[in-house]
Amino acid sequence: MSEYPTSVGRLIGALKRLPTIGARSAERLALHLLSCPPEEAVELSASIAEAIERVRPCRCCGFFSEEDLCRICADPRREAGIIAVVQQASDVLVIERSQAFRGTYHVLGGVLSPLDGIGPEELHIPELLTRIDAGGVGEVILALGADVRSETTSLYLVNEMKSRPVSISQLATGISAGGPLEFSDAASLTHALQDRKKIG
Amino acid sequence: MSEYPTSVGRLIGALKRLPTIGARSAERLALHLLSCPPEEAVELSASIAEAIERVRPCRCCGFFSEEDLCRICADPRREAGIIAVVQQASDVLVIERSQAFRGTYHVLGGVLSPLDGIGPEELHIPELLTRIDAGGVGEVILALGADVRSETTSLYLVNEMKSRPVSISQLATGISAGGPLEFSDAASLTHALQDRKKIG
Repeated sequence: MSEYPTSVGRLIGALKRLPTIGARSAERLALHLLSCPPEEAVELSASIAEAIERVRPCRCCGFFSEEDLCRICADPRREAGIIAVVQQASDVLVIERSQAFRGTYHVLGGVLSPLDGIGPEELHIPELLTRIDAGGVGEVILALGADVRSETTSLYLVNEMKSRPVSISQLATGISAGGPLEFSDAASLTHALQDRKKIG
Repeated sequence: MSEYPTSVGRLIGALKRLPTIGARSAERLALHLLSCPPEEAVELSASIAEAIERVRPCRCCGFFSEEDLCRICADPRREAGIIAVVQQASDVLVIERSQAFRGTYHVLGGVLSPLDGIGPEELHIPELLTRIDAGGVGEVILALGADVRSETTSLYLVNEMKSRPVSISQLATGISAGGPLEFSDAASLTHALQDRKKIG
């Protein structure tokens, strides 16, 4: 790498820190940025700087926003009384794409992980309880994923909320819609059997 | 995508223009940049801006450089009398890594492609001839690759240089070193047979 000018080496190093970008990809991307029309590279540099400058967490739910409140919290057509609790901001988009949810969100910023020093105070759990205590929230849907740490976090949240007048639910686990049975893993299939739905 | 704040959409768009980065990867990278420590994102933005600001083609060979002359052309230990002609700046690194070449380079900036409007004047062919005419160049090694347009470009260069007092060679084509024969394609094997080397 020493044959590269210093600034190119620095660029490759910065690209290499991105997820899924290895040493070879970082080099290829850097060479592309140096060979493409300069406007294109300037645009990328400027848009990174602009995004981190302008985007902040929504004051209410923690989703990405350029304003005090995000587009979802600011939308009067959304049902503010239903809150879907998600791990991270990108999960909001996953649910939005389904177009099956018209409530609002609450981004925890992770899941409980005592070994990594992540307790309730490190997540936006106090803010969630404050929202509930402010009134008007009828239902909380836990949409945290189905791994062990997510389940632990869900259990903790259920415990924190049980003395509060809200209905608590969590996403159903089961086989994937639209896929053949053979693509389902054993754990999902177990859940699908346990939670089978009477249809006749 | 409309749920994203404008600046995030712009960032995703800029990332999507990078080679090998699709829509999903661009989104994932953008979310990473917004979630990682801000210093990391600032470092990437700044290093792109710095690299395109500081890096320019070496005045002599066209390789990346922050100075008038690149590190290779400026190195007195390199044999300036031997020039390897390559398509693009990144090819210089490919040859450098082999540590088998102690001469200098000349980056053409592409290959001839009349249908795309790329003629000799669009490439750094005049600069190559000027370097040869300035004297001191004993050998030119064509290292342009083995596809049709590269071969056409090599032929054109041979024609331009044949009246000049330089020895012209091109990289050997054959089977890959260190790999089993079954991984060699038919064209490489044909070359390897035609150019077989007497060893006993």
